[in-house]
Amino acid sequence: MSLVIIGSVAFDTIETPFGRRDRIIGGSGTYAALAASFFTRPGLVSVVGRDFPRRFLDRLRSRKIDLAGLKIKQGKTFYWHGRYDQDPNLRTTIKTELNVLQDFKPVLPESFRKADLVFLSNLDPESHDFILDQLTGTRLVAMDTIRYWIENKPEALLRAIQKVDILFVNDEECRLIARELNLVRAGRKLQAAGPKVIVVKKGEHGAMLFGKNFVFGVVANPCERVVDPTGAGDAFAGAFLGYLDSTGRFNQRELRKAAVYGNVVASLVIEDFGVDGLLRASQLDIINRYQQFRKLCAF
Amino acid sequence: MSLVIIGSVAFDTIETPFGRRDRIIGGSGTYAALAASFFTRPGLVSVVGRDFPRRFLDRLRSRKIDLAGLKIKQGKTFYWHGRYDQDPNLRTTIKTELNVLQDFKPVLPESFRKADLVFLSNLDPESHDFILDQLTGTRLVAMDTIRYWIENKPEALLRAIQKVDILFVNDEECRLIARELNLVRAGRKLQAAGPKVIVVKKGEHGAMLFGKNFVFGVVANPCERVVDPTGAGDAFAGAFLGYLDSTGRFNQRELRKAAVYGNVVASLVIEDFGVDGLLRASQLDIINRYQQFRKLCAF
Repeated sequence: MSLVIIGSVAFDTIETPFGRRDRIIGGSGTYAALAASFFTRPGLVSVVGRDFPRRFLDRLRSRKIDLAGLKIKQGKTFYWHGRYDQDPNLRTTIKTELNVLQDFKPVLPESFRKADLVFLSNLDPESHDFILDQLTGTRLVAMDTIRYWIENKPEALLRAIQKVDILFVNDEECRLIARELNLVRAGRKLQAAGPKVIVVKKGEHGAMLFGKNFVFGVVANPCERVVDPTGAGDAFAGAFLGYLDSTGRFNQRELRKAAVYGNVVASLVIEDFGVDGLLRASQLDIINRYQQFRKLCAF
Repeated sequence: MSLVIIGSVAFDTIETPFGRRDRIIGGSGTYAALAASFFTRPGLVSVVGRDFPRRFLDRLRSRKIDLAGLKIKQGKTFYWHGRYDQDPNLRTTIKTELNVLQDFKPVLPESFRKADLVFLSNLDPESHDFILDQLTGTRLVAMDTIRYWIENKPEALLRAIQKVDILFVNDEECRLIARELNLVRAGRKLQAAGPKVIVVKKGEHGAMLFGKNFVFGVVANPCERVVDPTGAGDAFAGAFLGYLDSTGRFNQRELRKAAVYGNVVASLVIEDFGVDGLLRASQLDIINRYQQFRKLCAF
């Protein structure tokens, strides 16, 4: 099995009530790849500038992440600066500098093109076809999106959704795309538009899956100290797909377990700044959290 | 086993995007008793005015609800008029007339005083001692509250909480009482204050239990059409306690199942106006919904 993730690698400056971190490593691709690496050996397609620290790339390689698709380009790495309120659900973007990401055309190395699973993370929906055309024999394509594309390229986004198998959205995005306030109806509506399954990430309220013949709901892993929510959604998707890739079976039973692993890995992320929680955890930590979480949900 | 519920019986006028109903039967005691009646034969302590329809009392009796504690007094029945937004979580109170509830002193009939479970539903926390002093041999006391008491009698409320075994709160109330934004910390803090278990009702996001040695989380039963959310929380508590009463075992396993039954019965309520969903459902409907919900949550 094999999973390829196409997403950003970035510098983030993050302010939360617990403190501030300047220019730490972030990006949707980084979070997703690290999360997936607990389960499989993902390939990462991205671009960074010459200012990006080589030792962090070595760190990713040591987690068995394949960086054959990572370009190092003249210029500066994508930069994002955000601030969270006392309520970790409220965040303000202070600065976004696209830099080398500006005119990034993701070209997949030959070895990535026959990947079983491909994840298009927060990309311009108009760039999807360029990637899809490179794939040969991929079994599942997954995508995530952000509010920016919903507001600025709604038609391209809808076309892109119709071509994927798994759509990750948060509850707000789900309602916005479906133009439907009731989340259950919104999820079903998006599922009917094409994807095999809609994965709705509800943050502190857990997640829901909408498949053709089933609905699955699961609470979030309770967390007493939300230090930094950045990347939780990306890590959820990465763990979800990494787990699926490790099983090779894309049935309802495994999709449900994938969502729980997504939950569990996302709970690791928010307990610390940036990717620190992901870097510190072992596979055993993930298994332990999964087992504890099973007990929490049991009735 | 036996369960006694002390709460209001009311006329409600309800406006929602699905329509308007004038002076239909409502009240926290009504919802809780009807919900409990799927599992046990609850006693109801309340007061209504002479304007209250006898045929509805017969309806309650036909559901095996013991009305020995229901007073019919000179005057008008408690009246509430509320309006819900497109978002069913947002509601505005347009009118509240306490009427006969104004100077109601709940006196329990002799046969109610040795009840195993007693539920104090949304009562003035200063009236709790008057009721507790009437009890002989009760095993569990449960209470619910409303924002009004949190804001107007915070100290009396905290004293009341310390004396009960089960506290039902919604997520907002939990945060307000505990003065703590993080719901997990807030729930644990309230539990440490005295009750054996805190039951946090999260509406469309499900419920959480905080016990001394466990946390339990469960999503809500997905609902595509929220017609009228009135009484969902009261029905949740009534079903929770009704189920517990029917088992006679107040351990962790049964508390978890009780919360799921609470969930399931609350989902019946919101699909129709007032108590219509509760009146229409049979015990078999509850069992079917429970089994379907188990499948939805399974992983």
